Amino acid sequence: MVGDSRPIGVFDSGMGGLTVLRALAARLPEERFVYLGDTARLPYGTKSAETVQAYALQATRLLLGEGVKMVVIACNTASAVALYVLQESWDPVPVIGVIEPGASAGVAATKNGRIAVIATEGTVQGGAYARAIHLQRDDAQVVQQPCQVFVALAEEGWTDGPATLASAQHYLGPLFEGDNAPDTLVLGCTHFPVLANTIRQTIGDEIALVDSAETTAVAVADALESGGLASEGHTGAGKTIRFFATDSPERFARVGAIFLGRSIDESDVELVDLLKA
Amino acid sequence: MVGDSRPIGVFDSGMGGLTVLRALAARLPEERFVYLGDTARLPYGTKSAETVQAYALQATRLLLGEGVKMVVIACNTASAVALYVLQESWDPVPVIGVIEPGASAGVAATKNGRIAVIATEGTVQGGAYARAIHLQRDDAQVVQQPCQVFVALAEEGWTDGPATLASAQHYLGPLFEGDNAPDTLVLGCTHFPVLANTIRQTIGDEIALVDSAETTAVAVADALESGGLASEGHTGAGKTIRFFATDSPERFARVGAIFLGRSIDESDVELVDLLKA
Repeated sequence: MVGDSRPIGVFDSGMGGLTVLRALAARLPEERFVYLGDTARLPYGTKSAETVQAYALQATRLLLGEGVKMVVIACNTASAVALYVLQESWDPVPVIGVIEPGASAGVAATKNGRIAVIATEGTVQGGAYARAIHLQRDDAQVVQQPCQVFVALAEEGWTDGPATLASAQHYLGPLFEGDNAPDTLVLGCTHFPVLANTIRQTIGDEIALVDSAETTAVAVADALESGGLASEGHTGAGKTIRFFATDSPERFARVGAIFLGRSIDESDVELVDLLKA
Repeated sequence: MVGDSRPIGVFDSGMGGLTVLRALAARLPEERFVYLGDTARLPYGTKSAETVQAYALQATRLLLGEGVKMVVIACNTASAVALYVLQESWDPVPVIGVIEPGASAGVAATKNGRIAVIATEGTVQGGAYARAIHLQRDDAQVVQQPCQVFVALAEEGWTDGPATLASAQHYLGPLFEGDNAPDTLVLGCTHFPVLANTIRQTIGDEIALVDSAETTAVAVADALESGGLASEGHTGAGKTIRFFATDSPERFARVGAIFLGRSIDESDVELVDLLKA
Protein backbone atom coordinates (compact mmCIF):
# COMPACT_ATOMS: atom_id res chain seq x y z
CA MET A 1 0.00 0.00 0.00
CA VAL A 2 1.55 3.28 -1.13
CA GLY A 3 -1.51 5.53 -0.85
CA ASP A 4 -2.19 7.71 -3.85
CA SER A 5 1.10 7.84 -5.72
CA ARG A 6 -0.07 10.18 -8.48
CA PRO A 7 1.95 13.40 -8.64
CA ILE A 8 0.86 16.86 -7.48
CA GLY A 9 0.72 19.45 -10.24
CA VAL A 10 2.20 22.87 -9.52
CA PHE A 11 1.65 25.74 -11.91
CA ASP A 12 3.10 29.23 -12.13
CA SER A 13 3.60 31.90 -14.76
CA GLY A 14 7.32 31.30 -14.46
CA MET A 15 9.93 30.35 -11.90
CA GLY A 16 8.72 32.26 -8.82
CA GLY A 17 6.38 29.39 -7.97
CA LEU A 18 9.44 27.25 -7.34
CA THR A 19 9.52 28.82 -3.86
CA VAL A 20 6.17 27.07 -3.31
CA LEU A 21 7.46 23.83 -4.82
CA ARG A 22 10.47 24.05 -2.53
CA ALA A 23 8.21 24.40 0.51
CA LEU A 24 5.97 21.56 -0.73
CA ALA A 25 8.87 19.18 -1.38
CA ALA A 26 10.33 19.93 2.06
CA ARG A 27 7.02 19.31 3.82
CA LEU A 28 5.86 16.35 1.70
CA PRO A 29 8.89 14.16 1.00
CA GLU A 30 6.68 11.21 0.02
CA GLU A 31 5.08 13.05 -2.89
CA ARG A 32 6.04 13.42 -6.54
CA PHE A 33 5.55 16.74 -8.36
CA VAL A 34 5.05 18.03 -11.88
CA TYR A 35 5.89 21.74 -12.18
CA LEU A 36 4.86 23.87 -15.15
CA GLY A 37 6.19 27.40 -15.67
CA ASP A 38 4.40 29.32 -18.43
CA THR A 39 7.60 31.20 -19.19
CA ALA A 40 6.60 32.10 -22.75
CA ARG A 41 3.89 34.37 -21.37
CA LEU A 42 5.25 35.61 -18.06
CA PRO A 43 4.70 37.81 -16.22
CA TYR A 44 1.00 37.40 -15.46
CA GLY A 45 1.14 40.22 -12.90
CA THR A 46 0.58 42.98 -15.41
CA LYS A 47 -2.06 41.19 -17.52
CA SER A 48 -5.86 41.37 -17.38
CA ALA A 49 -8.01 38.88 -15.50
CA GLU A 50 -9.49 37.44 -18.71
CA THR A 51 -6.06 36.84 -20.21
CA VAL A 52 -4.72 35.19 -17.05
CA GLN A 53 -7.79 32.94 -16.79
CA ALA A 54 -7.32 31.74 -20.37
CA TYR A 55 -3.62 31.11 -19.81
CA ALA A 56 -4.23 29.29 -16.50
CA LEU A 57 -6.78 26.98 -18.10
CA GLN A 58 -4.37 26.06 -20.90
CA ALA A 59 -1.53 25.51 -18.46
CA THR A 60 -3.40 23.37 -15.97
CA ARG A 61 -4.88 21.27 -18.79
CA LEU A 62 -1.35 20.04 -19.42
CA LEU A 63 -0.95 19.07 -15.76
CA LEU A 64 -4.22 17.14 -15.83
CA GLY A 65 -2.91 15.33 -18.88
CA GLU A 66 0.06 14.26 -16.75
CA GLY A 67 -2.32 12.55 -14.35
CA VAL A 68 -1.96 14.82 -11.34
CA LYS A 69 -4.18 14.25 -8.30
CA MET A 70 -4.21 17.91 -7.23
CA VAL A 71 -3.34 21.28 -8.76
CA VAL A 72 -1.49 23.95 -6.81
CA ILE A 73 -1.60 27.41 -8.35
CA ALA A 74 1.78 28.65 -7.17
CA CYS A 75 1.15 32.08 -8.63
CA ASN A 76 -0.59 34.85 -6.77
CA THR A 77 -1.92 36.56 -9.87
CA ALA A 78 -3.47 33.36 -11.21
CA SER A 79 -4.78 32.41 -7.77
CA ALA A 80 -6.39 35.83 -7.48
CA VAL A 81 -8.28 35.76 -10.75
CA ALA A 82 -8.48 32.13 -11.89
CA LEU A 83 -8.91 29.92 -8.80
CA TYR A 84 -12.68 29.51 -9.07
CA VAL A 85 -12.57 29.03 -12.84
CA LEU A 86 -10.02 26.27 -12.41
CA GLN A 87 -11.87 24.65 -9.50
CA GLU A 88 -15.05 24.51 -11.58
CA SER A 89 -13.29 23.33 -14.71
CA TRP A 90 -11.25 20.54 -13.11
CA ASP A 91 -13.70 19.31 -10.47
CA PRO A 92 -13.29 16.80 -8.78
CA VAL A 93 -9.52 17.37 -8.84
CA PRO A 94 -8.77 19.73 -5.94
CA VAL A 95 -7.27 23.08 -6.93
CA ILE A 96 -5.46 25.08 -4.24
CA GLY A 97 -4.23 28.64 -4.62
CA VAL A 98 -1.78 30.68 -2.59
CA ILE A 99 -4.09 33.55 -1.60
CA GLU A 100 -6.29 31.94 1.06
CA PRO A 101 -3.40 30.27 2.92
CA GLY A 102 -1.48 33.57 2.98
CA ALA A 103 -4.55 35.52 4.08
CA SER A 104 -5.27 33.03 6.87
CA ALA A 105 -1.71 33.20 8.11
CA GLY A 106 -1.85 36.99 8.06
CA VAL A 107 -5.04 37.02 10.10
CA ALA A 108 -3.54 34.56 12.57
CA ALA A 109 -0.38 36.64 12.93
CA THR A 110 -1.76 40.15 13.39
CA LYS A 111 -2.42 41.55 16.83
CA ASN A 112 -3.54 45.06 15.92
CA GLY A 113 -5.69 43.97 12.97
CA ARG A 114 -3.61 45.88 10.43
CA ILE A 115 -2.08 43.80 7.67
CA ALA A 116 0.13 44.94 4.81
CA VAL A 117 0.22 42.90 1.60
CA ILE A 118 2.91 43.32 -1.08
CA ALA A 119 2.28 41.78 -4.48
CA THR A 120 2.34 42.37 -8.21
CA GLU A 121 0.21 45.09 -9.76
CA GLY A 122 -2.32 42.54 -11.01
CA THR A 123 -2.79 40.95 -7.61
CA VAL A 124 -3.17 44.31 -5.88
CA GLN A 125 -5.65 45.64 -8.44
CA GLY A 126 -7.72 42.48 -8.16
CA GLY A 127 -7.93 42.98 -4.39
CA ALA A 128 -8.08 39.23 -3.69
CA TYR A 129 -5.95 39.36 -0.53
CA ALA A 130 -8.11 42.09 0.98
CA ARG A 131 -11.25 40.06 0.23
CA ALA A 132 -9.78 36.84 1.61
CA ILE A 133 -8.60 38.60 4.78
CA HIS A 134 -11.97 40.33 5.31
CA LEU A 135 -13.80 37.02 4.94
CA GLN A 136 -11.96 35.87 8.05
CA ARG A 137 -11.78 39.12 9.97
CA ASP A 138 -14.11 41.80 8.73
CA ASP A 139 -12.61 44.60 10.81
CA ALA A 140 -9.07 44.01 9.55
CA GLN A 141 -7.38 46.97 7.89
CA VAL A 142 -5.51 45.91 4.78
CA VAL A 143 -2.90 48.06 3.06
CA GLN A 144 -1.73 46.81 -0.34
CA GLN A 145 1.43 47.85 -2.14
CA PRO A 146 2.41 46.69 -5.64
CA CYS A 147 6.16 45.96 -5.85
CA GLN A 148 6.93 45.22 -9.50
CA VAL A 149 10.64 45.98 -9.20
CA PHE A 150 10.97 43.19 -6.60
CA VAL A 151 10.07 40.68 -9.31
CA ALA A 152 12.97 41.75 -11.52
CA LEU A 153 15.39 41.92 -8.58
CA ALA A 154 14.46 38.38 -7.52
CA GLU A 155 14.80 37.03 -11.06
CA GLU A 156 18.21 38.70 -11.38
CA GLY A 157 19.28 36.92 -8.20
CA TRP A 158 19.86 40.24 -6.40
CA THR A 159 18.49 38.86 -3.14
CA ASP A 160 20.42 41.50 -1.22
CA GLY A 161 22.72 44.43 -1.96
CA PRO A 162 22.18 48.17 -2.31
CA ALA A 163 19.67 48.18 -5.19
CA THR A 164 17.43 45.66 -3.44
CA LEU A 165 17.72 47.43 -0.10
CA ALA A 166 16.94 50.81 -1.68
CA SER A 167 13.92 49.32 -3.47
CA ALA A 168 12.68 47.74 -0.24
CA GLN A 169 13.04 51.04 1.58
CA HIS A 170 11.20 52.84 -1.20
CA TYR A 171 8.27 50.42 -1.18
CA LEU A 172 8.08 49.41 2.48
CA GLY A 173 9.27 52.46 4.40
CA PRO A 174 6.04 54.44 3.97
CA LEU A 175 3.90 51.35 4.71
CA PHE A 176 5.15 51.01 8.27
CA GLU A 177 5.32 54.66 9.32
CA GLY A 178 3.10 56.22 11.97
CA ASP A 179 1.11 55.03 14.95
CA ASN A 180 -1.40 53.07 12.90
CA ALA A 181 1.15 51.00 11.04
CA PRO A 182 0.46 47.34 10.27
CA ASP A 183 2.11 44.72 12.47
CA THR A 184 2.06 42.02 9.77
CA LEU A 185 3.43 41.83 6.22
CA VAL A 186 2.19 39.17 3.80
CA LEU A 187 4.52 38.34 0.90
CA GLY A 188 1.81 38.10 -1.72
CA CYS A 189 4.04 37.12 -4.64
CA THR A 190 5.92 33.85 -4.93
CA HIS A 191 9.07 35.72 -6.03
CA PHE A 192 9.38 37.57 -2.76
CA PRO A 193 10.50 34.87 -0.29
CA VAL A 194 14.02 35.01 -1.76
CA LEU A 195 14.11 38.71 -0.77
CA ALA A 196 12.98 37.94 2.79
CA ASN A 197 16.29 38.85 4.44
CA THR A 198 16.39 42.29 2.85
CA ILE A 199 12.72 42.83 3.58
CA ARG A 200 13.31 41.85 7.21
CA GLN A 201 16.25 44.25 7.39
CA THR A 202 13.98 47.04 6.15
CA ILE A 203 10.94 46.46 8.32
CA GLY A 204 12.72 45.41 11.52
CA ASP A 205 12.05 42.49 13.84
CA GLU A 206 8.71 43.62 15.27
CA ILE A 207 6.66 42.97 12.12
CA ALA A 208 5.34 39.45 11.50
CA LEU A 209 6.41 38.26 8.05
CA VAL A 210 4.08 35.79 6.32
CA ASP A 211 5.59 33.69 3.54
CA SER A 212 2.72 32.32 1.49
CA ALA A 213 4.89 29.52 0.08
CA GLU A 214 5.16 27.98 3.56
CA THR A 215 1.50 28.53 4.37
CA THR A 216 0.42 27.01 1.06
CA ALA A 217 2.47 23.89 1.76
CA VAL A 218 0.58 23.48 5.03
CA ALA A 219 -2.76 23.86 3.22
CA VAL A 220 -1.76 21.28 0.61
CA ALA A 221 -0.70 18.80 3.29
CA ASP A 222 -4.07 19.26 5.01
CA ALA A 223 -5.99 18.78 1.76
CA LEU A 224 -4.06 15.62 0.87
CA GLU A 225 -4.80 14.21 4.29
CA SER A 226 -8.49 15.10 4.40
CA GLY A 227 -9.05 13.97 0.81
CA GLY A 228 -7.33 10.63 1.28
CA LEU A 229 -4.88 11.62 -1.44
CA ALA A 230 -1.59 11.38 0.39
CA SER A 231 1.14 9.18 -0.99
CA GLU A 232 2.90 6.84 1.36
CA GLY A 233 6.12 6.92 -0.56
CA HIS A 234 7.05 6.90 -4.21
CA THR A 235 8.51 3.82 -5.76
CA GLY A 236 11.71 5.36 -7.02
CA ALA A 237 10.70 4.84 -10.64
CA GLY A 238 10.98 8.20 -12.38
CA LYS A 239 12.05 11.54 -11.01
CA THR A 240 10.53 13.07 -7.90
CA ILE A 241 10.09 16.41 -9.66
CA ARG A 242 9.46 16.90 -13.36
CA PHE A 243 9.76 20.37 -14.89
CA PHE A 244 7.91 21.79 -17.89
CA ALA A 245 8.40 25.27 -19.35
CA THR A 246 6.78 27.00 -22.29
CA ASP A 247 9.97 28.80 -23.29
CA SER A 248 13.75 28.70 -22.78
CA PRO A 249 14.65 25.71 -20.58
CA GLU A 250 18.10 27.31 -20.23
CA ARG A 251 16.68 30.38 -18.51
CA PHE A 252 14.22 28.29 -16.51
CA ALA A 253 17.07 26.21 -15.09
CA ARG A 254 19.35 29.17 -14.42
CA VAL A 255 16.82 31.55 -12.85
CA GLY A 256 14.76 28.75 -11.32
CA ALA A 257 17.70 27.68 -9.18
CA ILE A 258 17.40 30.99 -7.29
CA PHE A 259 13.84 30.17 -6.30
CA LEU A 260 14.13 26.40 -5.82
CA GLY A 261 17.26 26.84 -3.70
CA ARG A 262 19.19 24.17 -5.57
CA SER A 263 20.54 23.75 -9.07
CA ILE A 264 18.28 22.56 -11.90
CA ASP A 265 19.72 20.64 -14.82
CA GLU A 266 18.62 22.23 -18.10
CA SER A 267 18.14 18.77 -19.61
CA ASP A 268 15.54 18.04 -16.93
CA VAL A 269 13.32 20.89 -18.17
CA GLU A 270 10.94 19.84 -20.93
CA LEU A 271 9.81 22.49 -23.42
CA VAL A 272 6.06 22.39 -24.15
CA ASP A 273 3.73 24.37 -26.40
CA LEU A 274 0.45 24.95 -24.57
CA LEU A 275 -1.34 26.10 -27.69
CA LYS A 276 -0.73 22.65 -29.19
CA ALA A 277 -1.28 20.70 -25.95
CA MET B 1 -0.02 67.31 -53.16
CA VAL B 2 0.54 65.91 -49.66
CA GLY B 3 3.11 63.22 -50.51
CA ASP B 4 2.40 59.81 -49.07
CA SER B 5 -0.04 60.46 -46.24
CA ARG B 6 -0.32 56.84 -45.09
CA PRO B 7 0.75 56.35 -41.47
CA ILE B 8 3.99 54.80 -40.22
CA GLY B 9 3.50 51.64 -38.15
CA VAL B 10 5.51 51.33 -34.95
CA PHE B 11 5.61 48.04 -33.08
CA ASP B 12 6.97 47.06 -29.68
CA SER B 13 6.41 44.34 -27.13
CA GLY B 14 5.00 46.99 -24.81
CA MET B 15 5.47 50.63 -23.95
CA GLY B 16 9.27 51.00 -24.12
CA GLY B 17 9.03 51.59 -27.88
CA LEU B 18 7.21 54.81 -27.13
CA THR B 19 10.67 56.36 -26.65
CA VAL B 20 11.19 55.63 -30.36
CA LEU B 21 7.75 56.97 -31.26
CA ARG B 22 8.55 60.11 -29.30
CA ALA B 23 11.77 60.61 -31.26
CA LEU B 24 9.97 59.87 -34.55
CA ALA B 25 7.13 62.30 -33.85
CA ALA B 26 9.59 65.03 -32.88
CA ARG B 27 11.67 64.56 -36.03
CA LEU B 28 8.78 63.93 -38.44
CA PRO B 29 5.95 66.31 -37.51
CA GLU B 30 4.26 65.84 -40.91
CA GLU B 31 3.74 62.10 -40.38
CA ARG B 32 0.93 60.10 -38.80
CA PHE B 33 1.67 57.01 -36.69
CA VAL B 34 0.00 53.79 -35.61
CA TYR B 35 1.64 52.27 -32.51
CA LEU B 36 1.04 48.71 -31.38
CA GLY B 37 2.25 47.44 -28.00
CA ASP B 38 1.94 43.67 -27.58
CA THR B 39 1.39 44.12 -23.86
CA ALA B 40 -0.38 40.78 -23.39
CA ARG B 41 2.87 39.00 -24.15
CA LEU B 42 5.57 41.34 -22.91
CA PRO B 43 8.41 41.16 -22.21
CA TYR B 44 9.99 39.71 -25.34
CA GLY B 45 13.47 40.09 -23.85
CA THR B 46 13.41 36.76 -22.01
CA LYS B 47 11.72 34.72 -24.76
CA SER B 48 13.23 32.51 -27.46
CA ALA B 49 13.89 33.67 -31.01
CA GLU B 50 11.18 31.42 -32.47
CA THR B 51 8.55 32.74 -30.06
CA VAL B 52 9.47 36.38 -30.70
CA GLN B 53 9.41 35.85 -34.49
CA ALA B 54 5.91 34.38 -34.31
CA TYR B 55 4.68 37.22 -32.08
CA ALA B 56 6.28 39.88 -34.28
CA LEU B 57 4.62 38.48 -37.42
CA GLN B 58 1.20 38.51 -35.75
CA ALA B 59 1.72 42.02 -34.43
CA THR B 60 2.93 43.59 -37.64
CA ARG B 61 0.15 41.93 -39.63
CA LEU B 62 -2.24 44.17 -37.71
CA LEU B 63 -0.24 47.26 -38.67
CA LEU B 64 -0.28 46.24 -42.34
CA GLY B 65 -4.04 45.90 -42.02
CA GLU B 66 -4.11 49.53 -40.91
CA GLY B 67 -2.51 50.54 -44.20
CA VAL B 68 0.92 51.61 -42.97
CA LYS B 69 3.58 52.58 -45.50
CA MET B 70 6.50 51.48 -43.33
CA VAL B 71 7.03 49.36 -40.22
CA VAL B 72 9.41 50.42 -37.44
CA ILE B 73 10.33 47.66 -34.99
CA ALA B 74 10.75 49.80 -31.89
CA CYS B 75 11.88 46.81 -29.86
CA ASN B 76 15.46 45.66 -29.66
CA THR B 77 14.62 42.04 -29.01
CA ALA B 78 12.30 41.81 -32.00
CA SER B 79 14.74 43.76 -34.19
CA ALA B 80 17.48 41.34 -33.19
CA VAL B 81 15.67 38.14 -34.06
CA ALA B 82 12.78 39.04 -36.38
CA LEU B 83 13.92 41.87 -38.67
CA TYR B 84 14.77 39.71 -41.68
CA VAL B 85 11.67 37.55 -41.26
CA LEU B 86 9.51 40.68 -41.26
CA GLN B 87 11.36 42.27 -44.19
CA GLU B 88 10.81 39.13 -46.26
CA SER B 89 7.21 38.70 -45.19
CA TRP B 90 6.08 42.28 -45.79
CA ASP B 91 8.16 43.16 -48.85
CA PRO B 92 7.80 45.73 -50.49
CA VAL B 93 6.81 47.60 -47.31
CA PRO B 94 10.09 48.78 -45.73
CA VAL B 95 10.78 47.39 -42.26
CA ILE B 96 13.30 49.21 -40.09
CA GLY B 97 14.67 47.95 -36.78
CA VAL B 98 16.53 49.71 -34.00
CA ILE B 99 19.72 47.61 -33.99
CA GLU B 100 21.49 48.84 -37.15
CA PRO B 101 20.91 52.54 -36.42
CA GLY B 102 22.23 52.09 -32.86
CA ALA B 103 25.21 50.08 -34.05
CA SER B 104 26.07 52.68 -36.70
CA ALA B 105 25.88 55.48 -34.17
CA GLY B 106 28.10 53.51 -31.79
CA VAL B 107 30.71 52.97 -34.49
CA ALA B 108 30.58 56.66 -35.42
CA ALA B 109 30.99 57.71 -31.78
CA THR B 110 33.84 55.51 -30.60
CA LYS B 111 37.42 56.70 -30.77
CA ASN B 112 39.17 53.74 -29.16
CA GLY B 113 37.10 51.08 -30.95
CA ARG B 114 35.63 49.72 -27.72
CA ILE B 115 31.84 49.83 -27.47
CA ALA B 116 29.64 48.70 -24.58
CA VAL B 117 26.04 47.67 -25.29
CA ILE B 118 23.41 47.29 -22.57
CA ALA B 119 20.20 45.46 -23.44
CA THR B 120 17.77 42.77 -22.35
CA GLU B 121 18.94 39.20 -21.91
CA GLY B 122 17.39 38.16 -25.20
CA THR B 123 19.14 40.88 -27.19
CA VAL B 124 22.50 40.14 -25.58
CA GLN B 125 22.23 36.39 -26.10
CA GLY B 126 21.29 36.90 -29.73
CA GLY B 127 24.45 38.97 -30.23
CA ALA B 128 22.83 41.16 -32.89
CA TYR B 129 24.52 44.39 -31.79
CA ALA B 130 27.95 42.78 -31.86
CA ARG B 131 27.29 41.45 -35.38
CA ALA B 132 25.94 44.79 -36.61
CA ILE B 133 28.92 46.66 -35.15
CA HIS B 134 31.44 44.21 -36.62
CA LEU B 135 29.88 44.51 -40.07
CA GLN B 136 30.87 48.16 -40.01
CA ARG B 137 34.12 47.94 -38.09
CA ASP B 138 35.57 44.48 -37.85
CA ASP B 139 38.22 45.35 -35.27
CA ALA B 140 35.74 46.87 -32.81
CA GLN B 141 35.66 45.35 -29.34
CA VAL B 142 32.10 44.92 -28.11
CA VAL B 143 31.20 44.29 -24.48
CA GLN B 144 27.57 43.36 -23.84
CA GLN B 145 25.76 43.54 -20.50
CA PRO B 146 22.17 42.40 -19.94
CA CYS B 147 20.30 44.80 -17.61
CA GLN B 148 16.91 43.23 -16.89
CA VAL B 149 16.33 45.22 -13.69
CA PHE B 150 16.52 48.45 -15.72
CA VAL B 151 13.36 47.38 -17.55
CA ALA B 152 11.36 47.12 -14.33
CA LEU B 153 12.81 50.36 -12.94
CA ALA B 154 11.85 52.23 -16.12
CA GLU B 155 8.33 50.79 -16.13
CA GLU B 156 7.92 51.75 -12.47
CA GLY B 157 8.86 55.31 -13.39
CA TRP B 158 11.93 55.21 -11.12
CA THR B 159 13.98 57.20 -13.60
CA ASP B 160 16.29 58.29 -10.79
CA GLY B 161 16.65 57.73 -7.04
CA PRO B 162 18.77 55.38 -4.96
CA ALA B 163 17.49 52.03 -6.30
CA THR B 164 18.08 53.08 -9.90
CA LEU B 165 21.48 54.58 -9.11
CA ALA B 166 22.55 51.44 -7.21
CA SER B 167 21.39 49.24 -10.10
CA ALA B 168 23.27 51.39 -12.61
CA GLN B 169 26.43 51.19 -10.51
CA HIS B 170 26.05 47.41 -10.22
CA TYR B 171 25.63 46.89 -13.95
CA LEU B 172 27.81 49.65 -15.39
CA GLY B 173 30.60 50.13 -12.86
CA PRO B 174 32.54 46.99 -13.87
CA LEU B 175 32.02 47.72 -17.60
CA PHE B 176 34.02 50.94 -17.53
CA GLU B 177 36.87 49.96 -15.19
CA GLY B 178 40.49 49.62 -16.28
CA ASP B 179 42.68 50.98 -19.07
CA ASN B 180 40.89 49.12 -21.83
CA ALA B 181 37.43 50.42 -20.96
CA PRO B 182 34.96 51.29 -23.74
CA ASP B 183 34.49 54.95 -24.60
CA THR B 184 30.94 54.47 -25.92
CA LEU B 185 27.76 53.06 -24.42
CA VAL B 186 24.84 52.05 -26.65
CA LEU B 187 21.42 51.94 -24.97
CA GLY B 188 20.25 48.75 -26.66
CA CYS B 189 16.78 48.63 -25.14
CA THR B 190 14.03 51.13 -25.83
CA HIS B 191 13.24 51.34 -22.11
CA PHE B 192 16.62 52.75 -21.24
CA PRO B 193 16.49 56.32 -22.61
CA VAL B 194 14.29 57.34 -19.65
CA LEU B 195 17.14 56.26 -17.34
CA ALA B 196 19.71 58.28 -19.31
CA ASN B 197 20.34 60.85 -16.57
CA THR B 198 21.12 58.20 -13.96
CA ILE B 199 23.23 56.27 -16.45
CA ARG B 200 25.14 59.45 -17.30
CA GLN B 201 25.65 60.14 -13.59
CA THR B 202 27.14 56.65 -13.22
CA ILE B 203 29.45 56.55 -16.24
CA GLY B 204 30.58 60.19 -16.15
CA ASP B 205 30.85 62.73 -18.95
CA GLU B 206 33.68 61.17 -20.93
CA ILE B 207 31.68 58.24 -22.32
CA ALA B 208 29.63 58.76 -25.50
CA LEU B 209 26.02 57.73 -24.87
CA VAL B 210 24.10 56.43 -27.92
CA ASP B 211 20.31 56.54 -27.67
CA SER B 212 18.96 54.18 -30.32
CA ALA B 213 15.56 55.91 -30.30
CA GLU B 214 17.14 59.06 -31.70
CA THR B 215 19.30 57.20 -34.18
CA THR B 216 16.34 55.15 -35.41
CA ALA B 217 14.35 58.32 -36.05
CA VAL B 218 17.18 59.55 -38.28
CA ALA B 219 17.19 56.24 -40.18
CA VAL B 220 13.43 56.38 -40.69
CA ALA B 221 13.61 59.95 -41.97
CA ASP B 222 16.28 58.89 -44.46
CA ALA B 223 14.26 55.88 -45.62
CA LEU B 224 11.12 57.97 -46.12
CA GLU B 225 13.07 60.44 -48.18
CA SER B 226 14.93 57.94 -50.33
CA GLY B 227 11.80 55.83 -50.88
CA GLY B 228 9.61 58.77 -51.86
CA LEU B 229 7.35 57.92 -48.93
CA ALA B 230 7.44 61.16 -46.97
CA SER B 231 4.21 62.91 -46.15
CA GLU B 232 4.00 66.62 -46.82
CA GLY B 233 1.53 67.23 -44.04
CA HIS B 234 -1.50 65.41 -42.72
CA THR B 235 -4.93 66.76 -43.35
CA GLY B 236 -6.04 67.03 -39.75
CA ALA B 237 -8.69 64.35 -40.23
CA GLY B 238 -8.10 61.73 -37.54
CA LYS B 239 -5.52 61.61 -34.79
CA THR B 240 -1.82 62.01 -35.47
CA ILE B 241 -1.03 58.98 -33.32
CA ARG B 242 -3.25 55.93 -32.83
CA PHE B 243 -2.47 53.44 -30.08
CA PHE B 244 -3.23 49.72 -30.00
CA ALA B 245 -2.45 47.36 -27.11
CA THR B 246 -3.07 43.66 -26.67
CA ASP B 247 -3.84 43.99 -22.95
CA SER B 248 -4.81 46.57 -20.32
CA PRO B 249 -5.23 49.98 -21.99
CA GLU B 250 -5.22 51.44 -18.46
CA ARG B 251 -1.68 50.24 -17.79
CA PHE B 252 -0.58 51.13 -21.34
CA ALA B 253 -1.73 54.72 -20.84
CA ARG B 254 -0.29 55.05 -17.33
CA VAL B 255 3.13 53.43 -17.90
CA GLY B 256 3.33 54.58 -21.52
CA ALA B 257 3.27 58.22 -20.43
CA ILE B 258 6.71 57.68 -18.81
CA PHE B 259 8.18 56.64 -22.16
CA LEU B 260 6.23 58.95 -24.48
CA GLY B 261 7.00 61.92 -22.26
CA ARG B 262 3.41 63.15 -22.25
CA SER B 263 0.11 61.85 -20.91
CA ILE B 264 -1.90 59.28 -22.87
CA ASP B 265 -5.66 59.15 -22.55
CA GLU B 266 -6.78 55.60 -21.76
CA SER B 267 -9.73 56.01 -24.11
CA ASP B 268 -7.30 56.61 -26.97
CA VAL B 269 -5.81 53.12 -26.54
CA GLU B 270 -7.63 50.46 -28.51
CA LEU B 271 -7.56 46.88 -27.18
CA VAL B 272 -6.88 44.28 -29.90
CA ASP B 273 -6.60 40.48 -29.94
CA LEU B 274 -3.79 39.49 -32.29
CA LEU B 275 -4.83 35.86 -32.33
CA LYS B 276 -8.13 36.94 -33.88
CA ALA B 277 -6.67 39.66 -36.12
